[in-house]
Amino acid sequence: MSNKKSQIYLDYAATTPVDERVIKIMLPFFNKKFGNPASIHSFGQTAEAELTAQRAKFATAINARPEEIYFTSSATESNNLVLKGLSMANRDRGNHLIISAIEHDCVFESAKWLSQNGFEISIAPVDQFGQIKFNELAKLITPKTILVSIIHASNEIGTLQDLKKIGQLCKKNNIYFHTDTAQSFGKIALDVKKLNIDLLTASSHKIYGPKGVGLLYKKAGIKIQPLLHGGGQENGLRSSTVNVAGIVGFGKALELCLTEQTKESQRQIKLRDYLIKNILIKIPGSHLNGHPTNRLSNNINLRFDKIEGESIAMLLNEEGIAVSTGSACSSNKLEPSRVLLATGLEPAKVHGSLRISLGRWTTKSDLDYLIKKLIPIIKQLRAISPF
Amino acid sequence: MSNKKSQIYLDYAATTPVDERVIKIMLPFFNKKFGNPASIHSFGQTAEAELTAQRAKFATAINARPEEIYFTSSATESNNLVLKGLSMANRDRGNHLIISAIEHDCVFESAKWLSQNGFEISIAPVDQFGQIKFNELAKLITPKTILVSIIHASNEIGTLQDLKKIGQLCKKNNIYFHTDTAQSFGKIALDVKKLNIDLLTASSHKIYGPKGVGLLYKKAGIKIQPLLHGGGQENGLRSSTVNVAGIVGFGKALELCLTEQTKESQRQIKLRDYLIKNILIKIPGSHLNGHPTNRLSNNINLRFDKIEGESIAMLLNEEGIAVSTGSACSSNKLEPSRVLLATGLEPAKVHGSLRISLGRWTTKSDLDYLIKKLIPIIKQLRAISPF
Repeated sequence: MSNKKSQIYLDYAATTPVDERVIKIMLPFFNKKFGNPASIHSFGQTAEAELTAQRAKFATAINARPEEIYFTSSATESNNLVLKGLSMANRDRGNHLIISAIEHDCVFESAKWLSQNGFEISIAPVDQFGQIKFNELAKLITPKTILVSIIHASNEIGTLQDLKKIGQLCKKNNIYFHTDTAQSFGKIALDVKKLNIDLLTASSHKIYGPKGVGLLYKKAGIKIQPLLHGGGQENGLRSSTVNVAGIVGFGKALELCLTEQTKESQRQIKLRDYLIKNILIKIPGSHLNGHPTNRLSNNINLRFDKIEGESIAMLLNEEGIAVSTGSACSSNKLEPSRVLLATGLEPAKVHGSLRISLGRWTTKSDLDYLIKKLIPIIKQLRAISPF
Repeated sequence: MSNKKSQIYLDYAATTPVDERVIKIMLPFFNKKFGNPASIHSFGQTAEAELTAQRAKFATAINARPEEIYFTSSATESNNLVLKGLSMANRDRGNHLIISAIEHDCVFESAKWLSQNGFEISIAPVDQFGQIKFNELAKLITPKTILVSIIHASNEIGTLQDLKKIGQLCKKNNIYFHTDTAQSFGKIALDVKKLNIDLLTASSHKIYGPKGVGLLYKKAGIKIQPLLHGGGQENGLRSSTVNVAGIVGFGKALELCLTEQTKESQRQIKLRDYLIKNILIKIPGSHLNGHPTNRLSNNINLRFDKIEGESIAMLLNEEGIAVSTGSACSSNKLEPSRVLLATGLEPAKVHGSLRISLGRWTTKSDLDYLIKKLIPIIKQLRAISPF
């Protein structure tokens, strides 16, 4: 662990600090308005009323109805619930699912589990920028297809998908459409009706809310088998005492995004493009992964010829700069990134990749400091590279 | 909702306020030590180190090893994970499970789900006090039995089970033994080795920690299929970004229990018995549910002839006193309590039940106020009772 006093966090895609304004609004729900929403007394009623208000807020934000919003413990849980729960409950409609080649591990592994339990999974390919090959996706549809699950913004390379086009395709074929928006929710406006989204996953800790809170939008009438059985909370879809403080925090985090994000996204895009441009110019043998413009405002994913991303990340950490090689969830795995391989890169090139993700408190001087430190690190690593 | 300024909370079994000392210790983990433990940089390492320390603390408390402690989002999740995950992973050993007649809804409903998916469930009966009929339990064991799951302390009537005796029975028959200690963890010392416990569930929000955090102890070597697939957190058993702040809070809550609980339990037992004695004397036609002494230090469950518990709870709420009729999770269900029926009570008598649960901030004057208000409420309700 680095002992540097000034640390620069550039891994906002992995997790974000909770905004002070979010913490402030959560506090009374720990020890004053602490009731269990399932209780019939006034403490319970206060909690239940707050929960109702939060549900309405999220519904409004994505143009859904309050009763279509379900709170979970994470995006991982929401994604598992959709993949497994919808498949199990709709087996009479078919046993075929389509996911993309660049889904998050939790969708990928849930699909793998389903493939071992009587379901067939097809993987929609992506182009060199990580964009779904739409015609290939359309060809994968069979009469047995029940669900298409496509990540909105790649957690690794930041590439955005055309949800509207995919939504229309699904609607036309009478297939449920799910999208994991863990990285884009609160950053890009989403209208589930206009985009024909049937199910949507979001996460609190990616938008300056607390960890341990996720969301699932499920269009009314869609059958899902619960993963967690018990007291029947969340309209029977997700039993567990409801994490009211966490949900209140998530709600405030969303509110802040809604009011600030347009301006913030523009600010981040400028920073993002400044960083990309400077690195590509100043460091020979550096390349951008993902799409040059059709990408998250805060995502930069680069690769450097002849060196490994992990070594770069570790040396940057020594300088007090936090970045990652891929998704945090897969950072302890030694295999080359599934997502980057899907874009057609050779395994050797994949290993040279670095993800830099910006956030609410990133400044231009943070990026100048990064560039200043990155240049000699790349030189140093290349000098000892076995390649 | 009541507008009374002074409110007396006597529903600590449903949920507890977070202790100020717990909140204080959680705060830096929201926005300072906010890293994702799966990240390789110093922010991630700080979070991971904290997680390791917390795991060790919980392990020590129950005489387990740190790698046998898994954090989840709730006791409900832990119980679902054990019931379903262990059954699925051990189908080659057998397809028979035994639970008790007084389990929490999350064990009961998980077992029900299993019974619809190829497993056989037996229900161990209880006596009039809610104690497992040990000989009947032993008789239910078959060569196909893989798991016995028994709640340590009933969330409704507070009755405690003899875990040691059940643990020995399971060990002798080579059957896994799981116990849900959501109501007793942190209140009663538990040694998983001495008690032959293979799996144990606990909850943060029942012991003055935050909602949204649970724990599962799983003895090394026991196979469980995950409910949540993905990034492979919690040693592959429970994928999801780890809720570090919540776990740190849970850890502090446990610590406070360990140092204060012996004294606190003695204090609560005095209050509990004072209340029971006074109500039974002062209100004719009142009866104690559960065991007179072999019960949780903070649980009081009473029934009143000829009136409904829900009406009592609602009128007490009008006086600023929060109590419940059964478990919070089942308070919105209109059926008579499964647990009370299992003790042999007729449905009509079950409906007259009220649960009063004490906590860290309950005083004798709170109970005197309750008694004072309860006496006329019972009279008033009996005057209009149709029975």
